[in-house]
Amino acid sequence: MTQRTVDRRGFLKAGATVAAGSLVVPLLADDRVNRSVVAAPPGDYGQPSPFAPARREAISRHPFGAGAGASSTPLQLLNGTVTPNSLHFERHHSGIPQIDPAKHTLTIYGDVHQSLQFSYEDLLAYPLETHLYFLECSGNSYRNTLPDAQNATAGTLSGLVSGAEWTGVPLHYLLAEAGIKPNAKWLVAEGADASANTRSLPLNIALDNVMVALYQNGEPLRPSQGFPMRLFVPGCEGNISIKWLTAIKLQAEPAYTREETSKYTDLLKDGQAEMFSLRMGVKSLITTPSGLMTLPRQGVVEISGLAWSGHGSIRKVEVSADAGRSWVTAPLQSEPGPLRLTRFRLPWRWQGAPAILQSRAVDDRGNIQPSRDHALARYSPLGFYHYNGIQSWQVSAAGEVKNVYV
Amino acid sequence: MTQRTVDRRGFLKAGATVAAGSLVVPLLADDRVNRSVVAAPPGDYGQPSPFAPARREAISRHPFGAGAGASSTPLQLLNGTVTPNSLHFERHHSGIPQIDPAKHTLTIYGDVHQSLQFSYEDLLAYPLETHLYFLECSGNSYRNTLPDAQNATAGTLSGLVSGAEWTGVPLHYLLAEAGIKPNAKWLVAEGADASANTRSLPLNIALDNVMVALYQNGEPLRPSQGFPMRLFVPGCEGNISIKWLTAIKLQAEPAYTREETSKYTDLLKDGQAEMFSLRMGVKSLITTPSGLMTLPRQGVVEISGLAWSGHGSIRKVEVSADAGRSWVTAPLQSEPGPLRLTRFRLPWRWQGAPAILQSRAVDDRGNIQPSRDHALARYSPLGFYHYNGIQSWQVSAAGEVKNVYV
Repeated sequence: MTQRTVDRRGFLKAGATVAAGSLVVPLLADDRVNRSVVAAPPGDYGQPSPFAPARREAISRHPFGAGAGASSTPLQLLNGTVTPNSLHFERHHSGIPQIDPAKHTLTIYGDVHQSLQFSYEDLLAYPLETHLYFLECSGNSYRNTLPDAQNATAGTLSGLVSGAEWTGVPLHYLLAEAGIKPNAKWLVAEGADASANTRSLPLNIALDNVMVALYQNGEPLRPSQGFPMRLFVPGCEGNISIKWLTAIKLQAEPAYTREETSKYTDLLKDGQAEMFSLRMGVKSLITTPSGLMTLPRQGVVEISGLAWSGHGSIRKVEVSADAGRSWVTAPLQSEPGPLRLTRFRLPWRWQGAPAILQSRAVDDRGNIQPSRDHALARYSPLGFYHYNGIQSWQVSAAGEVKNVYV
Repeated sequence: MTQRTVDRRGFLKAGATVAAGSLVVPLLADDRVNRSVVAAPPGDYGQPSPFAPARREAISRHPFGAGAGASSTPLQLLNGTVTPNSLHFERHHSGIPQIDPAKHTLTIYGDVHQSLQFSYEDLLAYPLETHLYFLECSGNSYRNTLPDAQNATAGTLSGLVSGAEWTGVPLHYLLAEAGIKPNAKWLVAEGADASANTRSLPLNIALDNVMVALYQNGEPLRPSQGFPMRLFVPGCEGNISIKWLTAIKLQAEPAYTREETSKYTDLLKDGQAEMFSLRMGVKSLITTPSGLMTLPRQGVVEISGLAWSGHGSIRKVEVSADAGRSWVTAPLQSEPGPLRLTRFRLPWRWQGAPAILQSRAVDDRGNIQPSRDHALARYSPLGFYHYNGIQSWQVSAAGEVKNVYV
């Protein structure tokens, strides 16, 4: 590994000798600029460049459910840690309802001293908090639990994770106003979509950092993310961050709903299913280079990827170019914070030999991202939730990158 | 002030007695949820809700320039600190060119050891960095320099500022590769738009934290923000973050271009003009409640706003409800960091009396946001750049909010 990677201080030197495309040119003043004269005036709402179209991918539509399905963030086309709202992953159980906020309410009831009902306007006047958080579908990366490695992009394989700045009302304000009765240990949150997506959440999590989210990346939630309001449970599987949130019931026991019995449980080797395993494990993924890319030439390229953990902050990400025989710590290139995406980057000198690139994240609780084999070891071959195994990208002598199991 | 504001610990108590709309309801299970059955499947690109349309405002089109003009971020409709790319403010001198990145190059020449030319693909392979930064037009809030206070929204008055996560190549990598000659003290950056927007930047700033930005909020730059590449000069007036960047020339002196002589200079009282006053001053603004809003009822409302400084991080924001006679420190509700937007929030109990709301920011260099009079004192009445005076919002007995000078 040491002879195949360069540290960031070494990049300049490497770049000066095997530069990734820079070239000396004879300069003619008139020839220097390809000046554009086709120009549009300022407008009220911007659009991406047609020359850099980024679209969600792996769009699945459930055969038995109207509007049910998912679409993935094209991680390999993006950079930084914020996912634009138009490209945030989606997962719906009965499609995206178009809700008029004037007709929508949030009711808190059950084991409370007084039932309360809030309009959207009510909640907008409450104290808000703002945090960068990741959100990951419990089923993200399920393709890598299948027996054969699929040759696909990073987005298709693992793009059911996104990052955004979420703003909302801390749930503890609303629960305290309703008054929690002593026997209440769980809340049951229900969405206003046709599937009535409903999940149970332990009250100790609900009172910690959970919010009723109203804004995503500054603007009001999109319908596909729960407009006018969604529960947001940082660090936990996306399904429990109930979209189109309309009711919260407090009670002594979980509700054992359809979505936490038939689904979103972890099927173990002995046939038992683990329930309420809500936290997403420590995980990382190289997004450049990644599946279906081709390295344009030998020389120095930047390895870049994302890391996150449902248990806390990312402490370290290591990168290997030799299938895990040796590792180099990659600098974290955005500020690590709890429960958010962290970008890591490491220059790599590729000299034309086949290689297998991997990343391995460690969080501040000491959790270490497992190998694929280790990640699968506890579970039934039929299980596919909470997969956080190390992603391996094979780089061929021709520079072609593909998903492999090692 | 003390009897009219409540601290955050006090909010719950206040909310329980004068809650902003929460109400006890008799609950019927069937009546509880207005369930939506109209639903769309997951798609490849998301859109905002038609019930929460946020659009840029104050769209100006310059009478003498094709495509020239500006449009402002609707600050009063947004929350958090990230501005969605579709709503980031715009200011163009000859409109938005539609550039094919395959036909675009960046040339570094002048007082360098070797001239270099980079394609878009070249730059994508370089080391990148990611940071949250604000960007503010030098002319932001110019309406508040006019003799009469305009009754307008926060966005129209001061929405030529936005926040985003920017990712790009640190400029020092590229300059070091070209080799800076000892006599070079300035760089001159030029855009590929029809106006050939060109500005001079001291090399000590250029070597500090300046980047060639390629991504904004995760996705490739929008055409309106300089696709395929722009200079990004954190903390400095927006005009120097040259969009559609195509050339950087190193030289001993500034170029004294049109945009730094006829424009973007600060006209002083004595008729002299201050040049290269690039850093944006410490500034803040209450966005809720703000101009053209009406408080729906008496009771507790959250005062919320943004603060930023071109000199560093926000250390403190104070809020006044009595036109500056008394101040309360507002908690900072997003992580303050250098050269980024910071959200402040403070609960306020409005009991129906007229009030004048203000915010005053202090940065970590000790700079204090000035009053309007103080902010204007140095400058000619014809000057309007770099205005950072305190914004005053008058709340009438009817709850109507308007811009006033005090």
